[in-house]
Amino acid sequence: MPMTITEKILAAHAGLDQVEPGQLINVRVDLALGNDITAPVAIKEFRRIGVPRVFDRERVVLVPDHFVPNKDIKSAEQAKVLREFAREQQLTHYYEVGRMGIEHCLLPEQGLVGPGDVVIGADSHTCTYGALGAFSTGVGSTDLAAAMALGEIWLKVPQSVKFVYYGELPPWVGGKDLILYTIGRIGVDGALYQAMEFTGPAIEALSMDGRLTMANMAVEAGAKNGIVPPDEVTRRYVEGRAKRPYTFYQSDPGARYARVYEYDVSGLEPQVACPHLPENVRPVSQVGQVEIQQAVIGSCTNGRLEDLRLAARVLRGKKVHPGVRLIIIPGTQEVYRAALREGLVEIFIDAGAAVSTPTCGPCLGGYMGILAAGERCIATTNRNFVGRMGHPESEVYLSNPAVAAASAILGRIADPREVQ
Amino acid sequence: MPMTITEKILAAHAGLDQVEPGQLINVRVDLALGNDITAPVAIKEFRRIGVPRVFDRERVVLVPDHFVPNKDIKSAEQAKVLREFAREQQLTHYYEVGRMGIEHCLLPEQGLVGPGDVVIGADSHTCTYGALGAFSTGVGSTDLAAAMALGEIWLKVPQSVKFVYYGELPPWVGGKDLILYTIGRIGVDGALYQAMEFTGPAIEALSMDGRLTMANMAVEAGAKNGIVPPDEVTRRYVEGRAKRPYTFYQSDPGARYARVYEYDVSGLEPQVACPHLPENVRPVSQVGQVEIQQAVIGSCTNGRLEDLRLAARVLRGKKVHPGVRLIIIPGTQEVYRAALREGLVEIFIDAGAAVSTPTCGPCLGGYMGILAAGERCIATTNRNFVGRMGHPESEVYLSNPAVAAASAILGRIADPREVQ
Repeated sequence: MPMTITEKILAAHAGLDQVEPGQLINVRVDLALGNDITAPVAIKEFRRIGVPRVFDRERVVLVPDHFVPNKDIKSAEQAKVLREFAREQQLTHYYEVGRMGIEHCLLPEQGLVGPGDVVIGADSHTCTYGALGAFSTGVGSTDLAAAMALGEIWLKVPQSVKFVYYGELPPWVGGKDLILYTIGRIGVDGALYQAMEFTGPAIEALSMDGRLTMANMAVEAGAKNGIVPPDEVTRRYVEGRAKRPYTFYQSDPGARYARVYEYDVSGLEPQVACPHLPENVRPVSQVGQVEIQQAVIGSCTNGRLEDLRLAARVLRGKKVHPGVRLIIIPGTQEVYRAALREGLVEIFIDAGAAVSTPTCGPCLGGYMGILAAGERCIATTNRNFVGRMGHPESEVYLSNPAVAAASAILGRIADPREVQ
Repeated sequence: MPMTITEKILAAHAGLDQVEPGQLINVRVDLALGNDITAPVAIKEFRRIGVPRVFDRERVVLVPDHFVPNKDIKSAEQAKVLREFAREQQLTHYYEVGRMGIEHCLLPEQGLVGPGDVVIGADSHTCTYGALGAFSTGVGSTDLAAAMALGEIWLKVPQSVKFVYYGELPPWVGGKDLILYTIGRIGVDGALYQAMEFTGPAIEALSMDGRLTMANMAVEAGAKNGIVPPDEVTRRYVEGRAKRPYTFYQSDPGARYARVYEYDVSGLEPQVACPHLPENVRPVSQVGQVEIQQAVIGSCTNGRLEDLRLAARVLRGKKVHPGVRLIIIPGTQEVYRAALREGLVEIFIDAGAAVSTPTCGPCLGGYMGILAAGERCIATTNRNFVGRMGHPESEVYLSNPAVAAASAILGRIADPREVQ
C-alpha cells in the first residue's frame, strides 16, 4: 500500500512495513523534549516509573525557556528541577537558562532534529520540526516521562491531509501568511488529529525559516503534526548541522489523504488573525483601523533570523509610534549574535524597540510584555486566545514580522507597504 | 556662618540665606520623579489634593522601569496608570516602557538633573544624582504627590558627614568599591538622615559613572543624600547635556560636619558585600571559596557604559562557567546602543551571557533572574537583604562589574586578576 511521508516515518519507527490511519502503534522516539513548565512534572512521573536512567542521555533534551531569566521564585525552582535532573542523568543537551534560547528555534538550529526523525515534546508547538521532514508532535508530561524512561511512545497513526500551494508569494508575504491563511480557511479544528502535509511550488520556494513557521502552527488547526517533504532546501539546512544520520522520506504516489486542499497564493496579501482565535483571519487590508499599544516580534513561530531581517527592513531609519511598545525577542542566542553582526539589533534600538534576551515570555502571557485591560497587541506569536498575553480584556492580533513592524511604526495594524 | 554644599543648595531652594542642621524648611523642587511602583500611589494622592494640574509639566518625570516590559497584569496596569496620567498632564518627560531605561541611569544621561538642583523621587536610590552636585533624595509616594502638586517639599536639613579619600585607586577598583568599603566601615546606619559628602583626590580622579555609583548607595548607609562637589568632571558631563541652567555649589571652609572620615584607598582591593547586609564587606581575597549560580551586571548602581566596558574587558574571549547564568542589563537604551557600537554586546553574547533590555528586574527580586532556594548570586546591584533577589534561602553578594564578570567565568567569587 502506498503511504504518506508521515505514515512512512511512523512505520519505520514502529518496526513495521506498513501502517494505516487509526492504527495504534508503539513508536521508537529519536528525541524527547521538555521545558521549564512541563519537564518538572515529567521528571516527577519519571521517578515513579522507577528506572534509574533515561533511555539515552543524548536524546532527552531539556530547555528552560518559558520564564527565563527566571521570572519569580516558582520559575526559578522549576528551572532548578531541570538543572539538577540534567546533572544527575548527565544529559548532553541541557540548555541553561539564558544560554541558548527557545526550544523550537534551538533544536533545529543545533542540528538535534533531522529529516525522518520521530520527536516528541511536552509542548504543543513541538510540531515545528515537521518543517525538516520529521514527524514531531506535542505530548503531555506523563507521555514525556514514559518516553524518557523507555524511548518509546504509543501513537495512533493520524490521517493525512494534503495542502498544495500554487503560485509565487508576493513581497512581504511568507510562511506565517500561508499558515494563517490556511487556518482561516479550515478553522482551528480543521485538521483535528491529522497530519498536515504542506506541498506545492510555493512551499518548495519557501525558506527553512518560513517552513518552520508553518509547521509550528499546524497545532493551531488541531493537527497531530505538520510536515514538509524534504528537498534541497532541507538538505542545505541540515548538512553540516545534523548531529545524527537522517532519512528523507517522501509520500508515495497514490498515498491516501483524508482531504486535499489546493490554494493559489500568488496574489496573497499579508494575513492577520483577529481576536480571539487563530482562525479569525483577514487580509491586512480588511482589518480596518485597529490601534495598537504593543507589538511583539519573536517566539518559536517567528523568532528566527529571517524574521528579524524582515522586521529590520521595515524598521530601518523609522521610529516606533510614541503610543506603542515594540518588543523584539530573538529566538536563540545564535540568532541574537547573527542579528548583532548584521546590524539588525542596532536598527531595532535606534527605532525605539526593546530587544529582549531569548524567551517565550509574552507569547503565553508569561512576562516580558503583558497587556493591561483594554490594550491591544500585534504579535508574531501563534495564539490569540482570550487573555493569552495578559488581561482577559486585552486583545492579540497575529501577523508576520513585517506587518508587526509596520504596525509598530504607525500605531495601528498596517501593511508594510504603507511605511516604505 | 559657613555652610556645606548640601546646606547651601537647600538654603537657596528655601529662599533663605542660611540654614542649619535640624531646621525644618520648605524647599522648592526642581524635579519630582516617580516610577511604576510608586507613581500609581502618588497619582492617587495627587487626585485627593484636588489641584487640576501638576506644578510644572516639564518637572514631573515618570519612568516605568521596575517591571518592564510588563511582567504581569498588575505591572501592566501600573504602567498604564502612569501613561494615562502623563497624557492627561501632558508631561514632557514620560518615558515609555522599554523605550528608555532605568530612572537613575536615565535622568543624568538625559540632562534632566543638574548641579545645584533639588530632586526628589519616590525611589530610595534617588540619591544617585548627588554625583552631579545636586541635592537629591528618596521620598514616599505621598510626599511625591504633594511635590507634584505644589513643586515644594518640607525637609529637615541634614547634618553633613565628610568623607575624604586619599590615594590612587588600583586597577579593577572603582566607585563601587569605595562605597562598599565606606559602608563596611560605618555600617548601614552609619549616616542616618545625614548628608554624605564624598571628597578627596580619589573622588576627584573618579569618572562620573563611578561617582553616580557611589552616590547611588549613600542610602545604604542610611543617608538622606550623598553628594560630590562639582568639578571639571561634572562640567564635562553636564555641558551640552543639561536641559536647564545649573549652579556649582561648594562647601565653605569651616563648614560644620558631624564627623569626618579619612581613608587611604591607594591599596584598596575590590570589595564584596556578603549576605545579608551591604555592610558585611570584605576584600575579595578574604571572601573565601564561594560558588555562585548566577551573576547580574546592571542596575541603577552599575548599569552604565563604564560598567559594561569593565565587564567586557574581563569577559572578552572567555566563557561563562557552565554552572552560572550571567545576566547583563544595560541601564538605558543609550547605554545599550553605545555597547552595541563598541562591540561589548557581542563580547557578552559570545561569552554566553543573557543580555536583557534595560530594567530594574532582578535587583529588587522583580523578575529577570530570580533565585531559587539555596542559590547564590553575585550582583552589581545595591542591596543584598534576605530574599532580595528571590527565595528567602538564596544569597546575594554585591561587587563591582569586573568582580561579577570574573566570578561568572570561574563559577565562584573571584578577583578579576585571576582571569587575566
